[in-house]
Amino acid sequence: MFEFEVKTQCPHTGARTGVLHTPHGDINTPVFMPVGTQATVKGVLPRDLKEAGSQIILSNTYHLYLRPGHELVREAGGLHKFMNWDRPILTDSGGFQVFSLEAMRKVDDDGVTFRSHLDGAKHRFTPESTMAVEEALGADIAMCFDECTMAGADYKTSARAMERTHRWAQRCIDAHKREDQALFGIVQGNMYADLRVESAKAICSMDFPGIAIGGLSVGEEKPIMYEMLDALYPHLDPNRPHYLMGVGSPDCLVEGVGRGVDMFDCVLPTRLGRNGAAMTSQGRLTIRNAVYAHDFSPLDPQCDCYVCRNFTRAYLRHLIKAEEMLAAQLLSLHNIYFLHRLMDRIRDEIEAGTYKDFMKAFRASQAYSF
Amino acid sequence: MFEFEVKTQCPHTGARTGVLHTPHGDINTPVFMPVGTQATVKGVLPRDLKEAGSQIILSNTYHLYLRPGHELVREAGGLHKFMNWDRPILTDSGGFQVFSLEAMRKVDDDGVTFRSHLDGAKHRFTPESTMAVEEALGADIAMCFDECTMAGADYKTSARAMERTHRWAQRCIDAHKREDQALFGIVQGNMYADLRVESAKAICSMDFPGIAIGGLSVGEEKPIMYEMLDALYPHLDPNRPHYLMGVGSPDCLVEGVGRGVDMFDCVLPTRLGRNGAAMTSQGRLTIRNAVYAHDFSPLDPQCDCYVCRNFTRAYLRHLIKAEEMLAAQLLSLHNIYFLHRLMDRIRDEIEAGTYKDFMKAFRASQAYSF
Repeated sequence: MFEFEVKTQCPHTGARTGVLHTPHGDINTPVFMPVGTQATVKGVLPRDLKEAGSQIILSNTYHLYLRPGHELVREAGGLHKFMNWDRPILTDSGGFQVFSLEAMRKVDDDGVTFRSHLDGAKHRFTPESTMAVEEALGADIAMCFDECTMAGADYKTSARAMERTHRWAQRCIDAHKREDQALFGIVQGNMYADLRVESAKAICSMDFPGIAIGGLSVGEEKPIMYEMLDALYPHLDPNRPHYLMGVGSPDCLVEGVGRGVDMFDCVLPTRLGRNGAAMTSQGRLTIRNAVYAHDFSPLDPQCDCYVCRNFTRAYLRHLIKAEEMLAAQLLSLHNIYFLHRLMDRIRDEIEAGTYKDFMKAFRASQAYSF
Repeated sequence: MFEFEVKTQCPHTGARTGVLHTPHGDINTPVFMPVGTQATVKGVLPRDLKEAGSQIILSNTYHLYLRPGHELVREAGGLHKFMNWDRPILTDSGGFQVFSLEAMRKVDDDGVTFRSHLDGAKHRFTPESTMAVEEALGADIAMCFDECTMAGADYKTSARAMERTHRWAQRCIDAHKREDQALFGIVQGNMYADLRVESAKAICSMDFPGIAIGGLSVGEEKPIMYEMLDALYPHLDPNRPHYLMGVGSPDCLVEGVGRGVDMFDCVLPTRLGRNGAAMTSQGRLTIRNAVYAHDFSPLDPQCDCYVCRNFTRAYLRHLIKAEEMLAAQLLSLHNIYFLHRLMDRIRDEIEAGTYKDFMKAFRASQAYSF
């Protein structure tokens, strides 16, 4: 039911195209996954997501577990039916969210006790309990429960969290039952290359159909992230998809693909959209700026999305200034479309054997400044 | 360029169907107009409005004059281009908004001085200045600048405002220049039937292609509104369209049509949508209520809109509880669709000669309780 085929391997970089088969359809990789934290990609109707070319979306186990509750989602027939999304879905394990609740959690070898950000109520996640939650949600791809350390954590703390992540990975495998759901392992190790390599070896030694790289979206500088990806690259099984978690700026997508990454997710396009910023071929455009007040050109002259075909910068600026929700809707839609077209372009360049040149040209372009 | 044809007159009630020809297309009446106060129907993409069947939308002169400014809209090529709406638009005159700023305005025979609700800056509207603003916005239909009294204003105050409204109506006619824009007069007179009749006679004696009834959406009880419409009916020129301003609940639409009203506008469908309420064939549905937590049926089983075809009450309730903007988007879209389908039904019943029976049945239905 899950199979990953590499189609084209770039001869000069780690980039490759492939197809990931899932119960809800095939995914052409490299792929960007929009984030629908609470069972909705904020501000975007599912039919508009499809039109923009979203192949798969991510949803957050921590949030859905707390509200509306995974049992309700199960009762609805699973997350696909609940949110009306019939293409593939990936759920994280809640690990990242729980470990972000700095003051409100307590970790031990068995699991994590934490307080809900909604009402302060006490909850507990273990590898086994999160597997049960993810199975109830019923995504095509579930993620292991891992311990994610923050940027700047010392070597010893990072090593301990990594080792725990490996033990939990095995417990997740043992607990996971659904055959129509793929379970991906997560490589940790913070910003320590030797830990990353050790973690890649450990996770690749286990029976996971996909390998994720966690903990690289939590504040590290981009050069350190690229360094970690370089260190990891030789140790990631090339026959399995590689998923870089929580990363989605245009520069990181291009650099990540060049280092063998097949899957990305990030809240960036929708968060930027709600904050009045657009991703464009000329880089980030902050539409609130007064310079756009009388600018009747589209957000991005090189874009052919619904927004760029029909609305001007002056209008979008007006919506932002007037605090109209349509601003967030249109900017989010454009930003998602922009990233999907970038991934289309990336796949085309890889297939054409020109990815190395494309990377070079992209690095020199304004779109790279993110 | 503007022509109103009555197609079918109900033999038993004041209801009639017709077609209003405008530069941006024909409008089948009776019609409900969604409100796009700040050049956007809140939360709804223009293409989705079209799909829902919106024939014409209303936008507010007061708001657009203050932000982004009518000169910017003119520079954009007019409101249609600015907001990407190529069907007809109607703009009010700002009178209603200005007279709602109780503490912040001062009226004299020449016009009104008021303070902006945005920054407190002083502005002045006169019949001549609002005509200039509405011409810059460039809607298909512009409304006269009138003095609107609040519900409960005494007879003398209401009579004085009505007389001023008539003088201003003539000044609007004299000032209005655009031939591709129809100017509608507004009948005032508050809840005093004799004033309403006097006002109808005065406004109908002037050269307006359409007659609006103002000041009946500002707090009167519905029976008083119906009483006023009954009193007005014999005095409204049947050859011109009749527009009841600011009214849009299902019961008022059905009752208004029965009293000869051809056009309605209201923020109700979008405001209810943002507040988590749906208009349904069973009446108002407050989706936040716990009773819908496990309800996997559509908002309205009798509705075939995108929302009812694809999402459940349980999901919509989750979105509301999670404060997701998609809730407002979906509920607004459904509510607008609901009102358009109600108007379709109303037109069908009139053409079939069965409107009187329909009114009777509708009054007895749950949909009437609004």
